[in-house]
Amino acid sequence: MHKSIITIGREFGSGGRTVGRKVAEALHIDFYDEELVKQVALESGFNEKYIEQAGEDASSDNWFSYIFANRSGNGSSLSMDDYLWMVQCEVIRRISEKPCVIVGRCGDYVLRDREDVLHVFIYADMDKRAERIVRLYGESEKSPQKRLEEKDKKRKMYHKRFTDIEWGDYHNYHLMLDSGLVGIDECANIIVDLVQNKIK
Amino acid sequence: MHKSIITIGREFGSGGRTVGRKVAEALHIDFYDEELVKQVALESGFNEKYIEQAGEDASSDNWFSYIFANRSGNGSSLSMDDYLWMVQCEVIRRISEKPCVIVGRCGDYVLRDREDVLHVFIYADMDKRAERIVRLYGESEKSPQKRLEEKDKKRKMYHKRFTDIEWGDYHNYHLMLDSGLVGIDECANIIVDLVQNKIK
Repeated sequence: MHKSIITIGREFGSGGRTVGRKVAEALHIDFYDEELVKQVALESGFNEKYIEQAGEDASSDNWFSYIFANRSGNGSSLSMDDYLWMVQCEVIRRISEKPCVIVGRCGDYVLRDREDVLHVFIYADMDKRAERIVRLYGESEKSPQKRLEEKDKKRKMYHKRFTDIEWGDYHNYHLMLDSGLVGIDECANIIVDLVQNKIK
Repeated sequence: MHKSIITIGREFGSGGRTVGRKVAEALHIDFYDEELVKQVALESGFNEKYIEQAGEDASSDNWFSYIFANRSGNGSSLSMDDYLWMVQCEVIRRISEKPCVIVGRCGDYVLRDREDVLHVFIYADMDKRAERIVRLYGESEKSPQKRLEEKDKKRKMYHKRFTDIEWGDYHNYHLMLDSGLVGIDECANIIVDLVQNKIK
């Protein structure tokens, strides 16, 4: 079946977002990364900065969720994270009514039963990713390795909390590419080529 | 760096072996699957039938290993499986002195430190693999699903026993392809194209 939606899971610093943008440009379809964050912000009432992290990374600041849960005042145990998750799923389902590329945000899980979706995962080895995040985001107090490990762990935990699939487990993807070896442009080319010509 | 060796790990029934053969044919390089088994048989003194299974799948018949270990008579605790593993590693290292494709047999692990090796993993969903093994190998008393699950488990256990890497973990591969979606020919094309033209 033709694949009109592409979800891209990715390790932090692997360039998965850039791969996604290039794929969207080549296929002339919408690209959801920041736009998805904006939409969730709009519909949930939270600010974008918060959603950018809380909509994908498990946080250790769970106290914040509990405050929100207690404030709901209707006996519901819905935490802020749960609420955000629901809004995010709803937005993903809605935007995927039209062809698009969706980066991260458990798009792989939310759209797992859709036959018209291609699920991709982009990764790279630690050295390549470390070099990339320093180049793009600058130095910080923590070493690049430490930043990468923490971010990977948070994404893994977020998946674990809200889904029954494991982040990075090949069973959940059609295609997994090491962008450090394959190259970002070529990762995009392989995906575009598959979507346009090669899927039976 | 140019990749002159390709290792292919694969789920049983995914067509990974066929992908490997097609890649070797297209690149005009040697293909090691049965040939590897033959070579290990020759050098170890065991018969091919035994090596075909014991050189890749963990067995529940461990008593056989212990008998061999006891027979060595020199106080060594080297089991038959350990001995076979050593011979197999040695053969893999030797054949990889020339460009080739190596299917299975922990080639990914044995050659993990070589920069001129491309590591690929081929998989597919249960239904596609079940259909394929029945078509190729016929029916058996066990259901195709059961056969697949057992074989996957044995390969996983074999990797666990002899290596410190996990079978199917993306960190150990440059490229992981769902042959059920991508198609066997196209899996081979992607690999050939990467090796010939696209790796920086």
